[in-house]
Amino acid sequence: MSVKTNFYSDNVSGAAPEILAALVAANAGDTAPYGGDAGSERLQARFAELFETEVDVFPVGTGTAANGLCASIVAAPYGAIYLSDAAHLHGSECGGPEFWSGGNARTIPVPATDGKIAAAEVARMVDEALARSATDVPPRAVSITQGTEVSTVYTLGEVRAIAEAARARRLWVHMDGARLANAVAHLGCTPAEATWKAGVDVLSFGATKNGALAAEAVVFFNRELAQSMRYRRRRGGHLFSKMRFLSVQLEAYIANGLWLRNARHANAMARRAREGLASIPGVRFRSPTEINFVLVALPQPVWDGLVADGYSFSRRGAPSEGVIRIACAFDTTEADVDALVAAAHRHAGAAQRAPRAEPAVR
Amino acid sequence: MSVKTNFYSDNVSGAAPEILAALVAANAGDTAPYGGDAGSERLQARFAELFETEVDVFPVGTGTAANGLCASIVAAPYGAIYLSDAAHLHGSECGGPEFWSGGNARTIPVPATDGKIAAAEVARMVDEALARSATDVPPRAVSITQGTEVSTVYTLGEVRAIAEAARARRLWVHMDGARLANAVAHLGCTPAEATWKAGVDVLSFGATKNGALAAEAVVFFNRELAQSMRYRRRRGGHLFSKMRFLSVQLEAYIANGLWLRNARHANAMARRAREGLASIPGVRFRSPTEINFVLVALPQPVWDGLVADGYSFSRRGAPSEGVIRIACAFDTTEADVDALVAAAHRHAGAAQRAPRAEPAVR
Amino acid sequence: MSVKTNFYSDNVSGAAPEILAALVAANAGDTAPYGGDAGSERLQARFAELFETEVDVFPVGTGTAANGLCASIVAAPYGAIYLSDAAHLHGSECGGPEFWSGGNARTIPVPATDGKIAAAEVARMVDEALARSATDVPPRAVSITQGTEVSTVYTLGEVRAIAEAARARRLWVHMDGARLANAVAHLGCTPAEATWKAGVDVLSFGATKNGALAAEAVVFFNRELAQSMRYRRRRGGHLFSKMRFLSVQLEAYIANGLWLRNARHANAMARRAREGLASIPGVRFRSPTEINFVLVALPQPVWDGLVADGYSFSRRGAPSEGVIRIACAFDTTEADVDALVAAAHRHAGAAQRAPRAEPAVR
Amino acid sequence: MSVKTNFYSDNVSGAAPEILAALVAANAGDTAPYGGDAGSERLQARFAELFETEVDVFPVGTGTAANGLCASIVAAPYGAIYLSDAAHLHGSECGGPEFWSGGNARTIPVPATDGKIAAAEVARMVDEALARSATDVPPRAVSITQGTEVSTVYTLGEVRAIAEAARARRLWVHMDGARLANAVAHLGCTPAEATWKAGVDVLSFGATKNGALAAEAVVFFNRELAQSMRYRRRRGGHLFSKMRFLSVQLEAYIANGLWLRNARHANAMARRAREGLASIPGVRFRSPTEINFVLVALPQPVWDGLVADGYSFSRRGAPSEGVIRIACAFDTTEADVDALVAAAHRHAGAAQRAPRAEPAVR
Repeated sequence: MSVKTNFYSDNVSGAAPEILAALVAANAGDTAPYGGDAGSERLQARFAELFETEVDVFPVGTGTAANGLCASIVAAPYGAIYLSDAAHLHGSECGGPEFWSGGNARTIPVPATDGKIAAAEVARMVDEALARSATDVPPRAVSITQGTEVSTVYTLGEVRAIAEAARARRLWVHMDGARLANAVAHLGCTPAEATWKAGVDVLSFGATKNGALAAEAVVFFNRELAQSMRYRRRRGGHLFSKMRFLSVQLEAYIANGLWLRNARHANAMARRAREGLASIPGVRFRSPTEINFVLVALPQPVWDGLVADGYSFSRRGAPSEGVIRIACAFDTTEADVDALVAAAHRHAGAAQRAPRAEPAVR
Repeated sequence: MSVKTNFYSDNVSGAAPEILAALVAANAGDTAPYGGDAGSERLQARFAELFETEVDVFPVGTGTAANGLCASIVAAPYGAIYLSDAAHLHGSECGGPEFWSGGNARTIPVPATDGKIAAAEVARMVDEALARSATDVPPRAVSITQGTEVSTVYTLGEVRAIAEAARARRLWVHMDGARLANAVAHLGCTPAEATWKAGVDVLSFGATKNGALAAEAVVFFNRELAQSMRYRRRRGGHLFSKMRFLSVQLEAYIANGLWLRNARHANAMARRAREGLASIPGVRFRSPTEINFVLVALPQPVWDGLVADGYSFSRRGAPSEGVIRIACAFDTTEADVDALVAAAHRHAGAAQRAPRAEPAVR
Repeated sequence: MSVKTNFYSDNVSGAAPEILAALVAANAGDTAPYGGDAGSERLQARFAELFETEVDVFPVGTGTAANGLCASIVAAPYGAIYLSDAAHLHGSECGGPEFWSGGNARTIPVPATDGKIAAAEVARMVDEALARSATDVPPRAVSITQGTEVSTVYTLGEVRAIAEAARARRLWVHMDGARLANAVAHLGCTPAEATWKAGVDVLSFGATKNGALAAEAVVFFNRELAQSMRYRRRRGGHLFSKMRFLSVQLEAYIANGLWLRNARHANAMARRAREGLASIPGVRFRSPTEINFVLVALPQPVWDGLVADGYSFSRRGAPSEGVIRIACAFDTTEADVDALVAAAHRHAGAAQRAPRAEPAVR
Repeated sequence: MSVKTNFYSDNVSGAAPEILAALVAANAGDTAPYGGDAGSERLQARFAELFETEVDVFPVGTGTAANGLCASIVAAPYGAIYLSDAAHLHGSECGGPEFWSGGNARTIPVPATDGKIAAAEVARMVDEALARSATDVPPRAVSITQGTEVSTVYTLGEVRAIAEAARARRLWVHMDGARLANAVAHLGCTPAEATWKAGVDVLSFGATKNGALAAEAVVFFNRELAQSMRYRRRRGGHLFSKMRFLSVQLEAYIANGLWLRNARHANAMARRAREGLASIPGVRFRSPTEINFVLVALPQPVWDGLVADGYSFSRRGAPSEGVIRIACAFDTTEADVDALVAAAHRHAGAAQRAPRAEPAVR
């Protein structure tokens, strides 16, 4: 079997074998469509167990849909969502919040440090907006990504502080948990502690990046917020007719700790890559590596060499900064990482030996 | 193996074995995410072959998404879509057109006969709206469902007449082809003849009802209309990160004539059911059976008996009319149909022997 | 002074002298902009007196804005508004409800008799929609026009019955009172009885058709519903910077009974016109004349003659029906009406004397 | 007559006498409603003369409506508008662009210097967005405010450079001309040179801040863009039924150079205020004063004294910065300005004599 060279995204991987098997097994027999099947109904209980509280769970096909639906609900009837300037919901979903809300939501970026916003800054900005009577969009919600877009994780205290600032101003708290598994694995806490016990009202629960084919869920801890969801999901095209195929993916994902096992492994692979690259002269990490990827600026010859080897990464930020994301997934192996690190060292060594300048910009 | 008793929808079935196999096969190896994979790229060529012309194809997860995206595009920047009062797009998608267009589309129901609208009536209504200068939503498009929500099929001449009436008034033509396979199988024409050669600009191409797990596509024959699609699909949450899993379903679906083979079979099963039920006294069919389901009012004892047997159907229209839909799918067998018919006859016979009145209303 | 020949609309008149005078008087001195001026603040108290209860009043520039803002609020976060198939809000505002709600509102026409919907039919349709779980837009509100688009007026009992049916199903009640003055004048009740005492939550209060230059107001009896209004009005472009010019129009309009005096007069002029025309052979009235206009089909020679005389009316319904609206306003005089009636009789008499067939269609 | 103390906004003034007189004169007689009157029709020719080219003109009631309608059109069917981070359209209209477009427009703030954005920065940001294929909202338009929100004016060369950068990237150019009169007065150019000759496609033409009661207009130089406007204006509640009252304001505004005379005067008053305040120690101006207001931080005792005198200003920026806007209007007199300046000097002098510290923050 060949070594992995595609570190472009955690989405380059296929599905975890346990999940694919569940899907194949679900194919037999007829079922009620549109989520009336036994597997879909079972999901409510499974998520209630997972989160140690009653919840309303709505499977959807993509993270953008999960986030968009949440945005439309927490901003309703009309208002602003405060979030990190790096938030996927703000900058990577083609105007999703405006779309899902019918122009009734605006995202307001809060300056972030290592991808995380701080309660004090949220409070300050919201208070300022509240003081500008009727010229600005009224604040309605805060959204935080856990783990973040730059591989960091909010501590439980940080989440609680944001939620308290939000609650004091009557704002809802949304968590974009596209990589919640990785964050929980890092924190070593329970899913309940990571979410509703810290003040989260509604969660985009990700699975696709961590082993599903295509399955995410919106999880309402504040079940009042769920009232319009079944309608919104339907018209948004995420009430799948053969819903069982989504439900069994999610069920298999959270069964027997698969989701955390996969996440712990992916996190470990990212740490391993970081540690392996750290000793290369000129390597600059751009943020802590707390979940499953590494943001790093590589010396030009190292980058050139890896690309020549067939490696693939995604860029982050302006091209001139030369920062890439090395994304590990549930199926990244130690051998994959070690091969990447070795290749990087080889290119770095060759560069050092050669009388070649190291340009900062590429 | 047990006999099928769930005729509620063509969506109660799982996936066709050919499609499930393609999905499993696609799981191996890494790929570019978000449709950059080889399978997704191949799809353009496959659909161009199928339709004998260059097209732009965008896989999405559900028919509601396909229809909604089409609605948002054909109504843009703002306008009305004329369609059958039975159209799924109008009455069964929770206000999808308004949602996908951000309030810029309104659906205007045209009275239909056997689920089909007529060119003359469309022309009359559009001309009247155009005459009401600036008090009504401006006409922009016509949408027809092929095959229809009541198991009928537009002839090619009917489609052409509607398209010509539309074109003469500068309206776009959308076809909701959730069951296009069944319609093409019925018409015995080519996919090209059924669509762009008859004047269709953009098509919601269905696969899920006819053997896919969850895969539909928007097919643009008028490629100018496709310009904003990649953005719209993204923010609508239908750019799947592991897009290959949708693409391979669609590829397998149209490969080797599977889609038409499945559709022909489902159509034949519906005809078989209709023919078998026709001789039961009191049975009243509500529309022709040209595709894969039968709309029928059954005598009360027959209905009661079938329900007692465990059969499941969906109702159509007001409860007082007692009309049900018997939906056949690619995997409905002759034995399934024959068992249903036999059971119906058995209950009818028992009722005739019993001194029991036949109520019209249930 | 010449006789009035323009009966096209109650909007062809200018402003009542009392209102124009108030506007001119308001021009002196500087004021706080955006409704912070004394006149605008006074308006709250004036409307509270008028309606004998605390209300939240928001002046806006047009009835379409008043209706659209109300629609966006009563349908929020997302849902359907049930109303007459003749409702201005449904068919004459270019898709206003969809627009103002960002695609979150759909209007559902209820078959009406003489422009009025009945509580029982609303209840039936809403119950049916509630039973169609998650395929249809969820019912949220009922909207009634008082007086109606066809010159009729709901009795207080009819309004109460609709409001009770709505309340029992947790729907809000909106009243489009573009011609509320005319309705109240007809009913002889208090403004309170006509609105909140009959169960109305929020009102589009019209003034322009009855003597203002351009001033309408949204009046919230259910003040909880008003929470997002100041923001919505602002972004909808109806928070006028020199708001005093709207406020003083409204203040003058309701001061000293001007609004009811104007309305009573306009109603009387419409009755006078109806009575005068009734004796012409072939005249067919299309609805009762309870407020300030007459819907009538005139014999072709009468129509032709009046048009030749320079008279102007608006058509109603399909051209083949030949129904016109004769609209009277606060400034229509008895002489104006009598001249119109006399002219109609003259043309009718000439036609009778001439050997000319009377075509039903024009 | 008392001296003016309300410098809060150019909107605190009433209407110019010429405009009020035109309004009163327009009240006589009946007219066609909804803009069918002679005055409204004349407006097309008047604006064509003013701008020396054929235009499509649509009167509306407020600047927010004009801007919102323009935003919905230039962003259609869906896209981003690049504008100054100080733009009224972005930060002061409660999410107007999202609203008017149904969630199809996003405003993207470009860092500005003295309220003006630069062609090069726009080009850089747009190119970057175009390179981020399908994760960001697609660029569609640039919007510039002329004169700006901080009292500056783009040179014609600056406008042309932005328009060329826009055109090269297939973006439309919108100009928010809420204070276009003031800018044209400052530039000494023709209205044509200031707009379409410099590359502007569509203009929000302001009149209210400079002497109208409530009248603005959208002026299309690119008449293709106007196609959906009549519908959009209608459903947005800005097709006034008694439209003549808006049209005559606009006609009087541009007749005989009134608009430029008013603007030149207001500009001169602002310059006079600035010059008068400049010699007060501690006064810091925050931007050039090229149009009709002054942005300035006053020493605390001066501020306190003026407030005690009954003067009123609006704040700009964070309260800690202590910046106020001194807004002059068409009816601000030299005596008004001189009294303000004298009062400021008096308070400054008293403060200097007193042994009191001057705090930077209030």
